[in-house]
Amino acid sequence: MVIISASPEAHELAVAVTKEVARAGGSPFTVMASEEITRAFYDGAAEDTIALYPKHQESLIQACDVFIALSAPVNTRALANIDSKRIIALSRTVQKITDLRLSKRWCLTVHPCRTLAQQANMSLEEYQNFVYGATLIDWKAESKNLYLMKEHFEQHKDVRFVGPDTDLHASTEGRIWVASDGKHNMPSGEVFTAPVETTVEGKILFDVPFLQQGRVIEGVKLRFEKGEAVDFSAEKGQETLKSILDTDAGSRRLGEIAIGTNRGIKQYTLNMLFDEKMGNTVHCALGNSYKENNGTNRSAVHVDMIKTMVNGEVIAGDEVIYSKGKYFFETQAPGRPSIGKKTQRK
Amino acid sequence: MVIISASPEAHELAVAVTKEVARAGGSPFTVMASEEITRAFYDGAAEDTIALYPKHQESLIQACDVFIALSAPVNTRALANIDSKRIIALSRTVQKITDLRLSKRWCLTVHPCRTLAQQANMSLEEYQNFVYGATLIDWKAESKNLYLMKEHFEQHKDVRFVGPDTDLHASTEGRIWVASDGKHNMPSGEVFTAPVETTVEGKILFDVPFLQQGRVIEGVKLRFEKGEAVDFSAEKGQETLKSILDTDAGSRRLGEIAIGTNRGIKQYTLNMLFDEKMGNTVHCALGNSYKENNGTNRSAVHVDMIKTMVNGEVIAGDEVIYSKGKYFFETQAPGRPSIGKKTQRK
Repeated sequence: MVIISASPEAHELAVAVTKEVARAGGSPFTVMASEEITRAFYDGAAEDTIALYPKHQESLIQACDVFIALSAPVNTRALANIDSKRIIALSRTVQKITDLRLSKRWCLTVHPCRTLAQQANMSLEEYQNFVYGATLIDWKAESKNLYLMKEHFEQHKDVRFVGPDTDLHASTEGRIWVASDGKHNMPSGEVFTAPVETTVEGKILFDVPFLQQGRVIEGVKLRFEKGEAVDFSAEKGQETLKSILDTDAGSRRLGEIAIGTNRGIKQYTLNMLFDEKMGNTVHCALGNSYKENNGTNRSAVHVDMIKTMVNGEVIAGDEVIYSKGKYFFETQAPGRPSIGKKTQRK
Repeated sequence: MVIISASPEAHELAVAVTKEVARAGGSPFTVMASEEITRAFYDGAAEDTIALYPKHQESLIQACDVFIALSAPVNTRALANIDSKRIIALSRTVQKITDLRLSKRWCLTVHPCRTLAQQANMSLEEYQNFVYGATLIDWKAESKNLYLMKEHFEQHKDVRFVGPDTDLHASTEGRIWVASDGKHNMPSGEVFTAPVETTVEGKILFDVPFLQQGRVIEGVKLRFEKGEAVDFSAEKGQETLKSILDTDAGSRRLGEIAIGTNRGIKQYTLNMLFDEKMGNTVHCALGNSYKENNGTNRSAVHVDMIKTMVNGEVIAGDEVIYSKGKYFFETQAPGRPSIGKKTQRK
């Protein structure tokens, strides 16, 4: 039992995926998602309607084995003028469904469309090439590097991001680092974990703009004490950032820390699925953590934010995992346990 | 709990309907349907995959209260080259789901799109005017006439369609005539019942072309004995007609007989939703009957076929309900029980 969730602009891909699902002996069923449908719901719904639990959606997802999401926005800014509180309220209403979906076999990809091309300042053809350049990489080689990085991270009990305006430290003891090699997100190319949420300390500048609730947020600075974001600011979208932080107890803590590795992604396109995977970046997410990481932070939101690390370093324990444009496996022969080790740090 | 089923071309209408559902305090959820998605399933699926019962679909529909279908085909001929047997096989697989959907509050309409405009030999703007002309009629007046006609039909125990190449008779004893005034189909404008399926006798020529399984069927002649179609022919699409008749025991019998009344529909457009409602027509469906009519014929198919009645008559018992372009209520003052009575017929 397979659900294919597609925007109307991804219909073409939904058709292709339906054929492959049928070929594999699956029973495909397509649902439609778009920012305009979501917007229309906000425009019509009173508070108690937003709080209404969509049991029919739950029943559908409960009954499926696989959930495939094909994203192709019709308008990435359709929610820009909706009150953040109402967006957060809906996240809360459907949180159980979001969790349920993630408990299934799932994947998410993008179908190149004009909306995303425009957002990326590209023609449709350029954008198609961008998407296929990011997705049609040598996943076997990528996977090998990602698993090697996971292995190195898991030899240590903590992680540190260091760079301009940034020195963030967290314990990762007992947590699992996941090598994301294209089985869920496509494109992927990241190694991520859930930090021990009470141990995050220090400051970080997220210098890559991102979209949240249909609004651009830019230049986010966060300072953490005992895991909690105690100071925050943003050059753009500070109100939206505040609404995110104020969601619930878990939204002031980090649910994810990660390092992007995909060198097929050559530029930022204001699309988290791609931007957070770009090589030479790290990202952190406020809010909900993933069970596959042994994460324990719970929240109705999961908001990723990215930092360029061209001038930064990622250090796990006493080992430099990444430094100024190079992962440890790019500087030395991979597979040796001592690789990247560097004394006198931290 | 509301399900909105929309083609990608009906996205605009799905957005508008979502807003109204939310306004009414409902929880809307949109699913995507298109002939290309269906086609892709056939292209990929082996026989046992076509036979696989889609439990996830059932779960969704089971959990809903209302089902709204917004049709706007992307290609009405997408299934034209699929083997009829496979199409019938899928109908059988999902028959329980079709029944389940009809047991809910439901409605079906069309969003004017280029595909349907082209099929109707119109520009999009002309076709939009056609659709709105058929749907934005005086439903109060229409409803009054339809209920009056239902009342008259129900004073009798049988019905006869007479016209060129046509003399069809059936008992309607114990059956309910439904006045369809726009609460399910939009547009509507028909009074229909399920004939007592073993009593259909005589012959009929369906002279209006129609689409079935992505193929045009035209000039269908049927002859019934004891309810069963014992002779059949078609000027076009005879193989498809044969595959329909051979579906199961119920597909050789009539599940519906009806008279169309919508004078807002000015021409045929090869679209059953509109064509069968046109004034001066009757239609019959091979296959499944509706429970709301007290129908008892069961089949995996329900295939409507239309006959122009400009030169025909519809007679119930000893009463002429319709004759050559006029319903009884158009010739005399409505509301009087003796209206339309005509002795010495039948």
